[in-house]
Amino acid sequence: MKEQAYFQENREKNLAELNEWLSIPSISAISAHKEDINRAAQWAADALTRAGMENVEVIPTAGHPIVYADHLHAPGKPTALIYGHYDVQPVDPLNLWDTPPFEPTVRDGKLFARGATDDKGQIFIHIKAVEALLAENKELPVNVKFCIEGEEEISSPNLPIYLNDNTDKLRADMVLISDTSLLEKGKPAISTGLRGLCSLEVDLNTANTDLHSGSFGGGVPNALHALVSLLASLHDEQGRVSVDGFYDGVLPLSPEMREEFVKQGFNEEQLRQDLGLEQLYGEEGYSFVERVGARPTLELNGVWGGFQGEGTKTVIPKEAHAKITCRLVADQDPQHVLDHIEAHLRAHVQPGATLHVKQIEKAFAFNTDPSDPVLQKAADAYEQVYGVRALFTKDGGSIPIVEKLSRVLGIPAVMMGFGLPDENLHAPNEHFNLENFDKGLLTIVQFLKSL
Amino acid sequence: MKEQAYFQENREKNLAELNEWLSIPSISAISAHKEDINRAAQWAADALTRAGMENVEVIPTAGHPIVYADHLHAPGKPTALIYGHYDVQPVDPLNLWDTPPFEPTVRDGKLFARGATDDKGQIFIHIKAVEALLAENKELPVNVKFCIEGEEEISSPNLPIYLNDNTDKLRADMVLISDTSLLEKGKPAISTGLRGLCSLEVDLNTANTDLHSGSFGGGVPNALHALVSLLASLHDEQGRVSVDGFYDGVLPLSPEMREEFVKQGFNEEQLRQDLGLEQLYGEEGYSFVERVGARPTLELNGVWGGFQGEGTKTVIPKEAHAKITCRLVADQDPQHVLDHIEAHLRAHVQPGATLHVKQIEKAFAFNTDPSDPVLQKAADAYEQVYGVRALFTKDGGSIPIVEKLSRVLGIPAVMMGFGLPDENLHAPNEHFNLENFDKGLLTIVQFLKSL
Repeated sequence: MKEQAYFQENREKNLAELNEWLSIPSISAISAHKEDINRAAQWAADALTRAGMENVEVIPTAGHPIVYADHLHAPGKPTALIYGHYDVQPVDPLNLWDTPPFEPTVRDGKLFARGATDDKGQIFIHIKAVEALLAENKELPVNVKFCIEGEEEISSPNLPIYLNDNTDKLRADMVLISDTSLLEKGKPAISTGLRGLCSLEVDLNTANTDLHSGSFGGGVPNALHALVSLLASLHDEQGRVSVDGFYDGVLPLSPEMREEFVKQGFNEEQLRQDLGLEQLYGEEGYSFVERVGARPTLELNGVWGGFQGEGTKTVIPKEAHAKITCRLVADQDPQHVLDHIEAHLRAHVQPGATLHVKQIEKAFAFNTDPSDPVLQKAADAYEQVYGVRALFTKDGGSIPIVEKLSRVLGIPAVMMGFGLPDENLHAPNEHFNLENFDKGLLTIVQFLKSL
Repeated sequence: MKEQAYFQENREKNLAELNEWLSIPSISAISAHKEDINRAAQWAADALTRAGMENVEVIPTAGHPIVYADHLHAPGKPTALIYGHYDVQPVDPLNLWDTPPFEPTVRDGKLFARGATDDKGQIFIHIKAVEALLAENKELPVNVKFCIEGEEEISSPNLPIYLNDNTDKLRADMVLISDTSLLEKGKPAISTGLRGLCSLEVDLNTANTDLHSGSFGGGVPNALHALVSLLASLHDEQGRVSVDGFYDGVLPLSPEMREEFVKQGFNEEQLRQDLGLEQLYGEEGYSFVERVGARPTLELNGVWGGFQGEGTKTVIPKEAHAKITCRLVADQDPQHVLDHIEAHLRAHVQPGATLHVKQIEKAFAFNTDPSDPVLQKAADAYEQVYGVRALFTKDGGSIPIVEKLSRVLGIPAVMMGFGLPDENLHAPNEHFNLENFDKGLLTIVQFLKSL
C-alpha cells in the first residue's frame, strides 16, 4: 500500500515525536504528577491536530482530562471510536530499570520507556495511521473519533460519567482499542475477553506506638503477625482463593473454550525460562492460558510494616498494610467479590488487631463474540500485514472502560493489540518492540480501509 | 548527702551537656552514620576526662570504637566496671516523632530524644556521679573502670573480642550497668535476668522481574503470597512458636519464680490502656510479666514487598523480605534456635519460591543470683533515694554483652535501671523521665559509697 512508503520516510520523525510524549511522566496514580498528566493530555491534543483531526478538545474532568477529536467526512461509512490512554503506571522499584523510565532508549530494536507499550506507543499508532491516510489521500475511508483518557491505570473513574453525559457525541459502530498483546512475536491476536478488576487496601493496627520487643515481645499483639496470618488465609495450599463466595459467577470452561486455549499452542516451559521461574504456579487442573484468560485471581500487590532498613531493629510494629487486587471473569460482580473478601478478613482477623478495609476499584469482566464481522475484518487486516491471521484470545488484563464503552454505546469492541507478553508492562524496563510499531501502522491502515 | 547540692547547682549544665551528646545521631546499624558514631565516642571520652577519669582511650575496633577510662586510687576497695553504650537505634518511622529525634526537647519533665533513656541518658548518670564524687571528695570510694561501647544495638560484635584480649585490663569485682527500667514510676527494680537474642533475615524470590497481574495473575508464583504463608507458619493460633525445637532449653517456671512475678503486682489493664491495645496477646497460661520475663518470643520486626506507594499498582512482585528476631530464655542456644528456624522455613516454603536466609545475631540469655551481697547493696541504695527498696526482676530485653562480661570476668552483673517501661525505647518519641535522672545520680553515688 502507498502508506508504506510514507511510514518509512517519516519513521525517524514519528519515533522522535513518540519519545517526546514518553518523556512526560504522566503517572495517574500519584498526585504529584498532576502537571505532567496535563502536559501529556495537551501533547496528545496537539498530535491529533497535526494529524489533521478536527474538533480537538482537552476536556477537564473531576480527575485527569479526556482528549477528544473527530474527523466525520465519510458519509455512509461506519464510525470507529478509537480509545486509548496517555497515563502510565508508577515506576518503582526505580533501581531495577536499566535506563531511566522517562528517558526513552532504543536497544535491540526495542523502545524502552514507561508507557512505551502501555499505552502511549500503541495509541500513537492510530494517530499516525490517520495522519498517513489523510496525508496520502486527503480523506479517511471511515469516520473516526478519538477518545484518549488519563485515568486508565486508576480504573477510569471519570470517563464513564463523561460517556453517560455524551453518549451521542461518542456514538460509533465499533470501539477500536490497541492496549493488548500479540500471542508472541509474529503471532497476532485479537482479544475477545478481558478480566474485570476490583481492589482494596487493608490496614491493621495493634497499639498506639511501635514497641520494643525486649520489653513487650511475647506479651502484646504484633501487627505483622496479625497481617501475615490474615493474608495467608486468603489462599489454600493449592493457590485457590479461600474466600467464601469469591467464585460466584465464574462459569465452568466449556470444551469449546478449552479447545480455543489449546489452539494457542502456548509454550509454558519457554515462559518459565523467560521469567526465571522455578515453576509455574496456580489453580490445579488448568493450563497457564486458562488460569490467566478464564480464571479469576486474588493478588497481593504490596505488603509492608515495621523496619525495612539496614541492620536489625527489635521493634514490634503498631501497624501493617496490604494492597490487594482481583482479576475477575465471566459474571463475577466486583462489589460482591469485595464484600465477601471484606467479610472474610473481618472473620479471620486475629484478636488484638483492628482492621480497616478500603474498597477501591470495581469493574466487570468483558467478553465479545469473535464471529462479529468487524472482528473478522480485523483478523484479516493482521493477515495482510503479518502473513498470519490473528487468533481470537482471552486476555488476562483488565481495561475496565472497555466493558462500559461497549455496553453504553451498544457496539462491539475490537481489541487489536500490538504489544508482546514479555514487554514488562507495569514493571521495570517496559518496552515496545518496534517491529510491531511498524506493522501496527500498516495493520490499522489496512483495517480502516477494509471497513 | 553533700553531693545532692552539687547536682542541684549543676543540673542545667549537666542537661545541656547530655543534650549535646543526644544531638549526635550515632545509629550503629546504619553505615552512613559512621562519622556520627566516631563523634559520639569522642564526646564520651571528653566527658570522662572532664569528670576526672584517667587513662581515657578511644579504642578502634573492626566496627565502632570502645571508650575506656579508669580511676584506680582506692586500694583495698572493690573495683566496679561500669558498662554502657553510646550508640542508638534507628529512628524511622520519622513522621511519628513529635519532635525530631536528634533535637532533644523537654516536655512535662521528660527529655525526648533518641538515646535519651537507651542508653546515653543512663550511662551519663554514671559519668556525672563520678564527677560529683571527685569534685566534692577529691577521691572515689571505690576503684572505677568505664567501658562504653558503640555496638550494643547491633549485638556487640567486637567488644567480646576486646574483652578476651584485655581480660586483665577489664578485671573488676562487679559489672555495673544502667540500661534497664524501673518497674514503674517510684518502683525501682534490679534486673537479675535478661533474655538472649538471635536474628535473621529472610528473602524470597520467584521471578527475574516484577510481573503484571493482568498478564500473569493466577499463573505464576507471587513472592508475597509465598512470604505471608511462610511467615504465618511460624506461630500457631495461640501465639505459640510452631518451630520444632524452638523451646529446647526453656525451663518450666518454678512456683518460686511465679511468686516473684506475682510480687511485682503488675497492672495488665493499665498497660493495655497505656498502649492503646484492644487486648494483651501471647502464649496461653502465662501472665504478661511471665511472657516477657521468662518465655521466649519470635517477632517479625519488618516485612515488605511490592508496591507501597499511593494508589493501585497491579504488580506481582518478584521478591519479598522479612526481618525476624527472637528473645531467648534460660538455656536456649541461639545457634540451635536459628538452625531450627531455618530448617522450618526450608520445609515450609511454597513451591516456586527460592528462599535465602541470613543468620545474624546470636546471644545467650543471662541470669544472676539476687542473694549476692552486691545486689543487696544495690537494692539498699535505691531504698535510700526512692524510699522504696528495689525489687529483683527478670527483664525481657537483651544486652548480649552482659552475659559475656559476667562469664569471662567471672563477676556478678548489677543492673540498676533508671528508665521507665513506657519510655519508647526503640520506638518514636523515646524519652527519659528527668525525675529518674536526678534520683539516678543520687542512687549511684549512694551505691558506690556503700561498697
